Amino acid sequence: MPDTLRALDTPVFDRLTIIGLGLIGSSIARAARRTHAAKTIVAADISEDVCNRVRALGFADEVTSDLTAAVKDSDCVILCVPVGACGAAAEKIAAHLKQGAIVSDVGSVKGAVVAAMQPHLPSHVHFIPAHPIAGTEHSGPDAGFATLFLNRWLILTPIENGDPAATDQLATFWRAFGSNVEIMDVARHDLVLAVTSHLPHLIAYNIVGTAADLETVTQSEVIKFSASGFRDFTRIAASDPTMWRDVFLNNRDAVLEMLGRFNEDLAALQRAIRWGDGEALFNLFSRTRAIRRSIIEQGQDTAAPDFGRHAADEKE
Amino acid sequence: MPDTLRALDTPVFDRLTIIGLGLIGSSIARAARRTHAAKTIVAADISEDVCNRVRALGFADEVTSDLTAAVKDSDCVILCVPVGACGAAAEKIAAHLKQGAIVSDVGSVKGAVVAAMQPHLPSHVHFIPAHPIAGTEHSGPDAGFATLFLNRWLILTPIENGDPAATDQLATFWRAFGSNVEIMDVARHDLVLAVTSHLPHLIAYNIVGTAADLETVTQSEVIKFSASGFRDFTRIAASDPTMWRDVFLNNRDAVLEMLGRFNEDLAALQRAIRWGDGEALFNLFSRTRAIRRSIIEQGQDTAAPDFGRHAADEKE
Repeated sequence: MPDTLRALDTPVFDRLTIIGLGLIGSSIARAARRTHAAKTIVAADISEDVCNRVRALGFADEVTSDLTAAVKDSDCVILCVPVGACGAAAEKIAAHLKQGAIVSDVGSVKGAVVAAMQPHLPSHVHFIPAHPIAGTEHSGPDAGFATLFLNRWLILTPIENGDPAATDQLATFWRAFGSNVEIMDVARHDLVLAVTSHLPHLIAYNIVGTAADLETVTQSEVIKFSASGFRDFTRIAASDPTMWRDVFLNNRDAVLEMLGRFNEDLAALQRAIRWGDGEALFNLFSRTRAIRRSIIEQGQDTAAPDFGRHAADEKE
Repeated sequence: MPDTLRALDTPVFDRLTIIGLGLIGSSIARAARRTHAAKTIVAADISEDVCNRVRALGFADEVTSDLTAAVKDSDCVILCVPVGACGAAAEKIAAHLKQGAIVSDVGSVKGAVVAAMQPHLPSHVHFIPAHPIAGTEHSGPDAGFATLFLNRWLILTPIENGDPAATDQLATFWRAFGSNVEIMDVARHDLVLAVTSHLPHLIAYNIVGTAADLETVTQSEVIKFSASGFRDFTRIAASDPTMWRDVFLNNRDAVLEMLGRFNEDLAALQRAIRWGDGEALFNLFSRTRAIRRSIIEQGQDTAAPDFGRHAADEKE
């Protein structure tokens, strides 16, 4: 596995436009600059505040709040806006896209994004939806960093009758950031992500909300004793609210399907607790350890106890 | 906040006996040795395999599988066995305890442990239940380390008419390990921990089980894309199965109460997704961020994105 980013000899794109300079957009800009994956990096954001911040941070060659000007002559345009804003953004830039340009996104939902963007895009551009499986719970242009995508998955969900050469080019771009590129069907992406990402976020948001609303236990008690388990949920429950609202509104069916299964299983666990069925509890709790082991073996997490948040390296 | 352990001038106990040398028991032994909090450390475990391993690791002065011999002449006996085994262990050692000895435990449930242990203990010992809010997902004598309790809470739940001097002495012992000692009522402890620890573990075990059982998404897909959220749950779902079975069986009422609230809230969220109520989703997702901030401010977690599992320190 690569442990750092290396500069390319030849840029993948002459002109790259990133629309939306949050955590993901600003990380792409930083990574593109570090790896020389784009000769010119154009940052576009409808927020003047964000534009000013991006200018101060200095990771883009051009910064503008004018989206149509930003995409002109660009070889690759990546929308890094919330899923719910992709359709309107595509509509806005459509008429100004260069012949043969690649248009992509980074949304956590693919079916709804394709449905929202595709009708607006001219046939002379290559639309290739993408989803980097990377992120932190922080938001905004200051939160990004160049190595965010290193050793992380990047899923491309090419649309029917797309140009394989364009898909290859976009894959090459992402591989420069250390991403492992995976090609997947749109519907399958939304199902897999519903269980690996959307359901966990929903559950985390829910448990933190439940704890916050208790009148029998105070919030300060919850915070004080959070290291006993609750804490692990609060990280993902601190993720960007707009982004996640849009994910749930736009991947409704798959999320409700996974949530239904989760609820059934939880009802069975609840029953086992009520009736004192220790064997059922023990069996489930033993099974779940194996999954953890596989995740560590495949390099998707560290085996350091408690993510190294304790002084565990001081082990004797 | 102390950032390391310092040796005491005078030991708190001449002779300390730890029964059960798992993660917690072995960490207490290591911390007691490092801080000189006990002059002689006796490790007792009914498993000969564990005893042999403890001898090899060398953090105890005496190692035995004979519990009754182990507690003889001991000034402080700490049961570090699963909650469900505390009663039988107390019964076994009761007749051999020294006059005036402190007897304590480390169980995650206090009401059931007090009910199981107290009837067996002679009136000439001081029974002081305790619960260190610290741990990792690893188990066994190799998993322990001396700094596990540093800057973590230690809850004492003294029983009625107990001797305050003995409670003070046990508090002094734990403070030597860097623990922040909190005194709490038994029932309140079980309610607070039901929400901060037991419910989160239950939910984590459940979601990992749900994901493992899917026939529409393969386990290898779940593992592959786990960094998108699922991963955060797998850590606590890898905790010791026996310990957690006993926790749920022994704190049933409080856990079922918290689970009922969680389920109600989740049903409301489910309805908001089904009906496309973006405002309800956004409002919850915004509220939960504040809790995360407080946890970080109070030093119960780090603000490093993603617990530093990415190369985030390489930020540019």
